[in-house]
Amino acid sequence: MAKRKLETCFSPALYQSEEQSNSIVIIIDILRASSAICTAFANGVSAIIPVGEISEAKEYKARGFLVAAERDGFVLDFADFGNSPFNFTKDKVEGKIIVYSTTNGTGIINLASSAYKVAIGSFLNIGALAKWILSQDRDVLLFCAGWKNKFNIEDTVCAGAIAERLMESNLYSTICDSTLAAIDLWSIANPDLRGYIEKAAQRNRLREKKLDDCIDFCLTSEFTEKVPVIKNGILVDNLL
Amino acid sequence: MAKRKLETCFSPALYQSEEQSNSIVIIIDILRASSAICTAFANGVSAIIPVGEISEAKEYKARGFLVAAERDGFVLDFADFGNSPFNFTKDKVEGKIIVYSTTNGTGIINLASSAYKVAIGSFLNIGALAKWILSQDRDVLLFCAGWKNKFNIEDTVCAGAIAERLMESNLYSTICDSTLAAIDLWSIANPDLRGYIEKAAQRNRLREKKLDDCIDFCLTSEFTEKVPVIKNGILVDNLL
Repeated sequence: MAKRKLETCFSPALYQSEEQSNSIVIIIDILRASSAICTAFANGVSAIIPVGEISEAKEYKARGFLVAAERDGFVLDFADFGNSPFNFTKDKVEGKIIVYSTTNGTGIINLASSAYKVAIGSFLNIGALAKWILSQDRDVLLFCAGWKNKFNIEDTVCAGAIAERLMESNLYSTICDSTLAAIDLWSIANPDLRGYIEKAAQRNRLREKKLDDCIDFCLTSEFTEKVPVIKNGILVDNLL
Repeated sequence: MAKRKLETCFSPALYQSEEQSNSIVIIIDILRASSAICTAFANGVSAIIPVGEISEAKEYKARGFLVAAERDGFVLDFADFGNSPFNFTKDKVEGKIIVYSTTNGTGIINLASSAYKVAIGSFLNIGALAKWILSQDRDVLLFCAGWKNKFNIEDTVCAGAIAERLMESNLYSTICDSTLAAIDLWSIANPDLRGYIEKAAQRNRLREKKLDDCIDFCLTSEFTEKVPVIKNGILVDNLL
């Protein structure tokens, strides 16, 4: 039986949407958008509406929605939350619809929108995510958000951890150098993930902005069984 | 004293020329353009004129120049050479000017042309290259050619090897995740470079096309002391 294809993309600037129309695309932006989204679903959010423009987020706010919006890590003044996973607590989000606009994440969600399916990946949901991917008979692209179109270490290492699980199933094959490199970087990072991520530029940017309290949490595996997927442009639990 | 900045770019699609106007850019395309260029200089070529378009290469041929031209690894019918380093022997190239058009390489040379200086890097000239870079008081960008705008393993590992040497000098610092990842991948590859490169997609493409006889050679360190640099759009020995 022909194996499914596994690929990795290190930056939105390298993404080729026309190649992914039959694939599942997994968006990985672990510091912090994809970790925040997984946490929100773990805590019972009903749906998340991703929006690109700040003006659009403001309009939703005026119409009574809860709004999470940040730029360069900082909460925008009109918003209810920024994008620390610690913001999305059960008492705030359970049963709610949240509008979400981040520096990187929402643009990437739009970019990936022509794929067969789009899901959100992080260490927090890595086990459930791998199980869900394996249940689909599809090629997969691991899409690292990077930072301002540049490669980043933390998303790559997470892609490597997901890729390792998929390759172990023996259902996938890869001739993608990015995937092989991600798996190798994960093999270096795995014994001391927190120590390894210390050198990541984003880790240091968050430290300088005093926004780094959630990093240990974002590097925690198997926090939730939720796999957020996009349906009609909106993030929902894949089981819905 | 402020250290010089060291960065790495994994693909032409990620290159931002406006950021490099004061930097030295090192073009790395080891399978096979940058290895072929270093070999040609080792064997006494006077200059190499990089051209992008096949039609332009044909015009030079009609005017009596030696022409190296390939697309996807194969020599074009009108050309004197392809881009195997083994083509650029002393008896063929010594004292000559060669016109060179490759799938990837020449486009990248043009892309980098607004940098302060542009040089050609490979394992073949790694020692001399590092020495030359250290003699310049400049920020450096290691520019991996990749393959059709995608990340590739072989250029990344070579960038990691160059970066390691520069970082050891203590004259450079980096907050660039790509550089840190390249150094880590080099640390995995270094004990058995030929074995490691076996998994690279380009290694397998060259095998399928029976163009892989030169790979061991391309992975040889310190074959030549030549550092080809671009002056007025033409590749020459940096000592000229």
